[in-house]
Amino acid sequence: MMNNAMILNEGERIDDLMKSGRKIIQSANEFCFSMDSVLLAHFPKFKRKYKVLDLGTGTGVIPLLIADEVAKVEAIELNSTMADIARRNVELNDLNEKIFVTEGDYRSIKKYFKTESFDLVLANPPYRAIGSGAVNEISGVTTARHEFTATLDDVVTAARFALKYHGLFCMIHICERLCEIVETLHRHQFEMKRLRLIQPKFLKSPNLMLIESMVGGAPGALKIDPPLIVHNDDGSYSDEIISIYGLS
Amino acid sequence: MMNNAMILNEGERIDDLMKSGRKIIQSANEFCFSMDSVLLAHFPKFKRKYKVLDLGTGTGVIPLLIADEVAKVEAIELNSTMADIARRNVELNDLNEKIFVTEGDYRSIKKYFKTESFDLVLANPPYRAIGSGAVNEISGVTTARHEFTATLDDVVTAARFALKYHGLFCMIHICERLCEIVETLHRHQFEMKRLRLIQPKFLKSPNLMLIESMVGGAPGALKIDPPLIVHNDDGSYSDEIISIYGLS
Repeated sequence: MMNNAMILNEGERIDDLMKSGRKIIQSANEFCFSMDSVLLAHFPKFKRKYKVLDLGTGTGVIPLLIADEVAKVEAIELNSTMADIARRNVELNDLNEKIFVTEGDYRSIKKYFKTESFDLVLANPPYRAIGSGAVNEISGVTTARHEFTATLDDVVTAARFALKYHGLFCMIHICERLCEIVETLHRHQFEMKRLRLIQPKFLKSPNLMLIESMVGGAPGALKIDPPLIVHNDDGSYSDEIISIYGLS
Repeated sequence: MMNNAMILNEGERIDDLMKSGRKIIQSANEFCFSMDSVLLAHFPKFKRKYKVLDLGTGTGVIPLLIADEVAKVEAIELNSTMADIARRNVELNDLNEKIFVTEGDYRSIKKYFKTESFDLVLANPPYRAIGSGAVNEISGVTTARHEFTATLDDVVTAARFALKYHGLFCMIHICERLCEIVETLHRHQFEMKRLRLIQPKFLKSPNLMLIESMVGGAPGALKIDPPLIVHNDDGSYSDEIISIYGLS
């Protein structure tokens, strides 16, 4: 393991991931990992033999959280600053033999990976189409939130390329795009198998959703899980969130 | 209003609808109205000027529940025994000038109604494709639950025929068919605008859903409502259900 002081650039800090003693380097100028990534990392039903691909890994938070559950994690990131942090995060956590970070554009996924070679693909993609919602001024944050670098179709295309037949694709996205997502998945031979809505509070409208879809899955067998409630009515975190964050 | 004794056939009874003093005739041999119809009747945002069509009205429970909210309700029912009960229910409740029952098959909707002539269409259609789920022995119940007489595509086709541009189609259905429903609606120029999942209890998986879609609606603007919880943890009805049933 490297000495922490040696691996930090200006504006960067090391945070505790609250899982298996893992640490994560983040930068104040770039997109910091959000609860969304943490929730996505806890959504799939992992198998030890799984070879996993994380599309748009950012600083690598998802690979760091799931490394103990699977055989291997490949991660791809377009932003070179983020990809560099992700690589240093792998080193910092001594996971060089489990996690492999590629700097690259998953719209050209063929350049980097073999087709139908993964069991599970994860993505926390940009949520909003260009032209919708407020655009954040910081460039790294803008591309992480809006579809400047990858559309919904791009991320589903990449997932389909990477996955074996009957492989699983898990994604977190905003509820208002559910119908587009169903149709985009179908166009690429995916069938949605499991859906979990995320509510800020009990009896509040859900804003986000976790989606598991399968290449070549049978239609008409969607399972909708009980909702994931983030906050109790008094504003404190729900028991499930506390358990996910490893605080209990 | 007719004398109750005069309008009941053998095996029939009169139940209290708990709304505006309304009564409903039902038969032990046919499909009796379920909570599903009551929840659907409370889902749309009605306007006084609306001309409404209820596809597969059964004994007419939905028209009876919504009659006060809108200008006119047309209702169509294939089963002649049920259509006869529905007509007598209209008489029993003195609603001859508001509700009009047609005995007929909505797969041949052109025979009965003018195209693009309704503001709102409602349907509590058969939930299960033929070949799935247990088939109930009583014929009227079987056709109400399984797609022997009308498929998902049939009901959406009829709704599209009947609705004006930007008209609303509200349906209750089972969660596992969400993806097929999204795609079927799209094929017929509908866009899902509002979705509400129905959970038997807090933190249980939803089993049913209420769907509002619009002819020619813009994509990507789905609003998912907070879930409708049927029972409290102790098995009693939730406050919302008590309010819907007019028991509070």
